[in-house]
Amino acid sequence: MEYVGLDEPNKPAILSWLSKPKSKPPPRRAFVIARLDKQSHEIIVDLSTHAILSDKVYNGHGYPLLTYEEQLAAMELPQTYKPFIESIEKRGLNLSEVVYSTFTIGWFGELKSKRVLKVLCFYVDGTVNLYVRLVEGITLVADIDEMKIVEYYDRFIVPVPKAEGTVYRESKLEPPFGPRLNGATLVNPDGPGGFISEMFVPYMDPSEEWYYKSYFDSGEYGFGLSTVSLKDFVDCPANAVFLDAYFSTNDGTPAKISNAFCIFEKHARNIMWCHTESSIPGKVFTEVRPEVSLVVRMVATVDNYDYIIDWEFKPSGSIKLGIGLTGIIEVKGVAYTHTDQIKENVYGTLLAENTIGVYHDHFLTYYLDLDVDGEDNSFVKKNLETIKVTNPSSPRKSYWTVVSETAKTKFDTRTQFGLKKAELVVVNPNKNTNVGNNVGYRLIPRSAAHPLMSYNNYLQIRGAFTNNHVWVTPYNKSEKWVGGLYVDQSHGDDTLAIWSLRNRKIENKDIVLWYTIGFHHVPSQEDFPVMPTFGVGFELRPTNFFDSNPVLKTRPPYIVHWRPNCTN
Amino acid sequence: MEYVGLDEPNKPAILSWLSKPKSKPPPRRAFVIARLDKQSHEIIVDLSTHAILSDKVYNGHGYPLLTYEEQLAAMELPQTYKPFIESIEKRGLNLSEVVYSTFTIGWFGELKSKRVLKVLCFYVDGTVNLYVRLVEGITLVADIDEMKIVEYYDRFIVPVPKAEGTVYRESKLEPPFGPRLNGATLVNPDGPGGFISEMFVPYMDPSEEWYYKSYFDSGEYGFGLSTVSLKDFVDCPANAVFLDAYFSTNDGTPAKISNAFCIFEKHARNIMWCHTESSIPGKVFTEVRPEVSLVVRMVATVDNYDYIIDWEFKPSGSIKLGIGLTGIIEVKGVAYTHTDQIKENVYGTLLAENTIGVYHDHFLTYYLDLDVDGEDNSFVKKNLETIKVTNPSSPRKSYWTVVSETAKTKFDTRTQFGLKKAELVVVNPNKNTNVGNNVGYRLIPRSAAHPLMSYNNYLQIRGAFTNNHVWVTPYNKSEKWVGGLYVDQSHGDDTLAIWSLRNRKIENKDIVLWYTIGFHHVPSQEDFPVMPTFGVGFELRPTNFFDSNPVLKTRPPYIVHWRPNCTN
Repeated sequence: MEYVGLDEPNKPAILSWLSKPKSKPPPRRAFVIARLDKQSHEIIVDLSTHAILSDKVYNGHGYPLLTYEEQLAAMELPQTYKPFIESIEKRGLNLSEVVYSTFTIGWFGELKSKRVLKVLCFYVDGTVNLYVRLVEGITLVADIDEMKIVEYYDRFIVPVPKAEGTVYRESKLEPPFGPRLNGATLVNPDGPGGFISEMFVPYMDPSEEWYYKSYFDSGEYGFGLSTVSLKDFVDCPANAVFLDAYFSTNDGTPAKISNAFCIFEKHARNIMWCHTESSIPGKVFTEVRPEVSLVVRMVATVDNYDYIIDWEFKPSGSIKLGIGLTGIIEVKGVAYTHTDQIKENVYGTLLAENTIGVYHDHFLTYYLDLDVDGEDNSFVKKNLETIKVTNPSSPRKSYWTVVSETAKTKFDTRTQFGLKKAELVVVNPNKNTNVGNNVGYRLIPRSAAHPLMSYNNYLQIRGAFTNNHVWVTPYNKSEKWVGGLYVDQSHGDDTLAIWSLRNRKIENKDIVLWYTIGFHHVPSQEDFPVMPTFGVGFELRPTNFFDSNPVLKTRPPYIVHWRPNCTN
Repeated sequence: MEYVGLDEPNKPAILSWLSKPKSKPPPRRAFVIARLDKQSHEIIVDLSTHAILSDKVYNGHGYPLLTYEEQLAAMELPQTYKPFIESIEKRGLNLSEVVYSTFTIGWFGELKSKRVLKVLCFYVDGTVNLYVRLVEGITLVADIDEMKIVEYYDRFIVPVPKAEGTVYRESKLEPPFGPRLNGATLVNPDGPGGFISEMFVPYMDPSEEWYYKSYFDSGEYGFGLSTVSLKDFVDCPANAVFLDAYFSTNDGTPAKISNAFCIFEKHARNIMWCHTESSIPGKVFTEVRPEVSLVVRMVATVDNYDYIIDWEFKPSGSIKLGIGLTGIIEVKGVAYTHTDQIKENVYGTLLAENTIGVYHDHFLTYYLDLDVDGEDNSFVKKNLETIKVTNPSSPRKSYWTVVSETAKTKFDTRTQFGLKKAELVVVNPNKNTNVGNNVGYRLIPRSAAHPLMSYNNYLQIRGAFTNNHVWVTPYNKSEKWVGGLYVDQSHGDDTLAIWSLRNRKIENKDIVLWYTIGFHHVPSQEDFPVMPTFGVGFELRPTNFFDSNPVLKTRPPYIVHWRPNCTN
C-alpha cells in the first residue's frame, strides 16, 4: 500500500453531529492507495466492519507517493548491477563504501510514463555526510512496479569532493572546538485548523544530471512520514512533553515514531507588553509582562534537508508559524577548486573544493482552514490607499486610509507583501465586537518569494500553486493536497491553480486560506557542510477578535531565584 | 543647552591612531547645541582644556531637539492661563486632574517660523492611562524661546472617553485575572557598528486638530534620552547584567539612567542546526545543537509608545536587530460609541466607546557602518534573474541564476523585498575566502512598508529618507542623523535624500548602509488600552564571510537537571 490515511468525514457532517448531542457520529473510514498490477487503486475501508466499501482504479496522470520500502528495494538494485559495479571500479572506489538515494524524475512533457525513479550514489568511505560526496556522472533508472534497473548512464568522471571539513558528528570532530553551549533549564489552543500541504523544492541547474531535480516533499515522499524522533534537552527544552506518532507501513502494519512531537512553554525572554509612564508630574509608573508562549514542534527530515516546524501559541491569541531550514544542502561535484577557474555558469556557489551548492527554492504551502468564531467567514483585503487632499487651504496634502474590499469569489493574488499596502483579514461577518467591528484574524506574512521560473516550465506547471502567495477557496473535502493526490510525475492538472478556476463563492462561506512561504536559496559557504538554521514564517494575529487587549490582566510571574548550590 | 554629545573624531583619524602603536589619540571634544537669544549656537568644546574651540550660529531651517526641562516648563504654562482654565471648567472637569503633553508642530510650507510647540491636555481623574483620555478640541501653542502661550484654541467638545477598561497597572486591576505567567529562571561581538538614526511616525488624520501630528523621535525628542530603566526578571531575564547610561541635562549636569541596558544569554529554545541521517542502511545518526545567543536590550519610551530594541548576536555570526512596538497607541476622542453610527471617514478604528485609534506609520531608519574585514567595502546586488533555455531539446525551459551588480555610486532603491528577487550584500572586494569568494555580510529584510503619502506632502519632504528602503553612501562624519541635525520644524533640506544627490563613489570605499524598517499601523481593538508587542526587524547574516559553518564544532550543552526541591 502506498498510502493509508483517515477518510475524514465531510466537515458539515462533523459539525452536524457535534451540534446534536447523543447523535450517531459519522462512520470511521480509511482511505487507501494501493499499487497492484501497475495500477493505482483508491480504496475506501469501513474501519468498524473491516469491509471494503469501494475500489476504484485511478486513470489520471501521476503516481502515489513512494513508500520507504519501495525506495529501500530500489536502492538495493545497483549493488548487483554489473555495469554499475564496473563504473565504481573504474573510479577506483570501494563498492562497500557506496550508499544510495532515490530521486523522483518529475515530468517534462512526456506523453507516456512508467513508475520509475532515479537512483544516485554517494561515497561515504568513513564519513556519514553522504550528501557532500555524490559520485557524479552515474544515473540508474529503476522501474518500481517491476523493481528492476531499466536504464543506466555513466557519462563523465569528476573528483568525489573530499570528506575533510565536512564531518558534523560531535564524536568525530577534532579539537579545537568552539565553546560549549551553556545549558539552562495554555494548552488547548482555540485556534485555526491548518497543516502543511506541500513543500516544493526546485533546483536551478538545467544540465543533464540535474535538470529534473525538484521535490514535492509531501506528495512524493510524505512530509509527515519524514518526521524524526526528537531528543530531550537539545531538540526541545527540559520542560517539554513528548507525543509519539504512528504511520502505516507498506503492508499495513502500524509503525511508531517515538517523541515525534514536543510541546513546551517557551520563555524566550521577550516582552509581551510594557509601558513606562512619566508624564504625570513627580511620578513614574512601570508595568511589564514578560512573554510565555506554548510551542508545538516537530522536525521532518527529507533526506538531506531538515525542517523544524513550530506552531507557537501566544497568550495574546496570536499564532506564529515558523519553519527553520537546516541540515545538509544538495551539492554537485565539479573539478573546480577555486572561483578563479570558473568561466561558465555553474548554477551555484563554490562552497569548498570540488563542491557547488546549487541554487534552489523552497516553497512551503499552508492549508489554513480558519473558522473565526464559526464556520461562515469572509476574506477582506484592507487596502491602504493614498488620499490626496484637494482643499488648498489644508496644510496636509495627503494621507492614507483603509478601503476594505470583501472577496466574493475566488481570491488569488501575488500580493506585494514587502510593500504592505494591504492587510489580509479573515472575518466573521455575522459576529461583531462590543463596538461593532467584525471579529477577525489577520495573516501577517514575513517573506514571500515569487517563483522565478517561467509559467510554461513543466516544473512550474506542476508547482503552479505557488503562482500566487495567497489563495482563498471554499472548503471542499477533496481539496487538501495542493499539488494533487498523485504528485509523482504529475502533469499539474490537479493543483490548486486548477481548482481555483471554478470561481466559486467565498463570501460568508466556510473558507480555506492557502498561504505560500517562499525562499530563494543562494547557498553561501556558511551553509556547508551543515547549514545554520534559517528561519521563515508568518503570523495569524487577532484583529478586532477581542474587545480589548486579552492579556491586559495577565499578572507578572513570581520571581524565581536560582540557588547556585542546587545545580547538578 | 539643547544637545551635548561627543564630537566624534573622523573615522580615518581613529583608524590611523589605532594602526600606530603609542601614537597620540585624536583630541577629545564635545559638540554642543545651545539656544541663546533665539539663536541656535553650535559649539565645539575641548574636553581636556575646557576651552571653547568654535562657536557658530546656525542660520538654516529647523530647531534643535526639545529638552525635558523645556517641555516641563511648557506644560506648566496652561495651569495659570485663564482661557484654558475656563475651557476646563466649561467641560465640568477638575483642573487638578489634568495633565499635559507637548507636541512638535512640524512644517507645512510656512515661510517664517518661531520655536513653538503645541500643548495638549489629558484628563487622568484617578487613572494613569492619560493617552486614552485626551481632552479633544483644546490646543495651546507655546513659544519655547519666550516660554509663554502665544496662541489658544477651544474649538469643540466631545466626551472624554471613559477610563473603565483602560487600566493597565497590575495593582489597580480587578479580578478575574488571567493566569499568572510561570516564572523561569559571547560578549565582545565582532560585528558592524550601527545605531538607530531616526524614528519617523506620521499620523493619517488631516483634520485641524490632528494634521500636524507626526514625530521624529530621535531628532525632536531624542531616542536615547527616552531610555527607561529596565527591571530585573521582567524586562530582562534573571541571567542579565545591567549597564547604566548618562546624559546631559539642560544645564550640563550629567544625569544617570540606571539599568539602561541589559545584556543576557538568550536560550530561546531554538535549534542552531541539526541533521538526522538515516540513509546509511541500518544506522541512524542525529546531531542537534540548540541555539544560545547574546542579546543587548534597551527600551525607549517616547511619551505613549514604548520601543523594545534588541541586538541579538548569534554564535553563527548572524546579527538580528529587533524592534518590539508596545505601549499605548495615540487615540482621538469622538462622540461615537458604535461603528453603526459612523458615516464619515474617521481616519482610524473605533477601539472602544468614544475612542478612535488613528492610522499611522512607524519608519525606523538604521545607520549601519559595516566594515566587513576592513573599511573598504562594496555594495553588491545579487539579482536573481530568470534564464530561458533556448535549446528545444532541453527538458528544462527556464531556471534562475545570480547576476551580481556592484554599485559604483550612490545606491538608493525601493527594493521589493517581499518578492526577494535580489540579495543585498556588503562585500570586501579585497579579501577572499579559501575558495575565492569575496567575504561579505548580507542584509535580510523582514518588512519594508513604503511611505504612502505623496512626495510633495510636507511631512514626506521632511521624512524623505524613507522614500527608499536601502541607501548606500560613503562614510561622512557629518551624515549621521538621517532627518538632519535640526529636525524640529525642518524643511527637509538636510536629509539623506539630499545628501544622496551628490552621486559620490561607493565602490571599494568605507560605506554606510541605511536601512528603513516600515510598519503601517491600522489599530485593532487588541491594541487597546495597551498594545501587545508587535515585532519587526531584520538580519545581518555572514555570506561567504567564513570558509564554512562557523558553529559546526560547537559542542552541545551539558544536560542541566532541575531538582524540584531546589525551587524557592
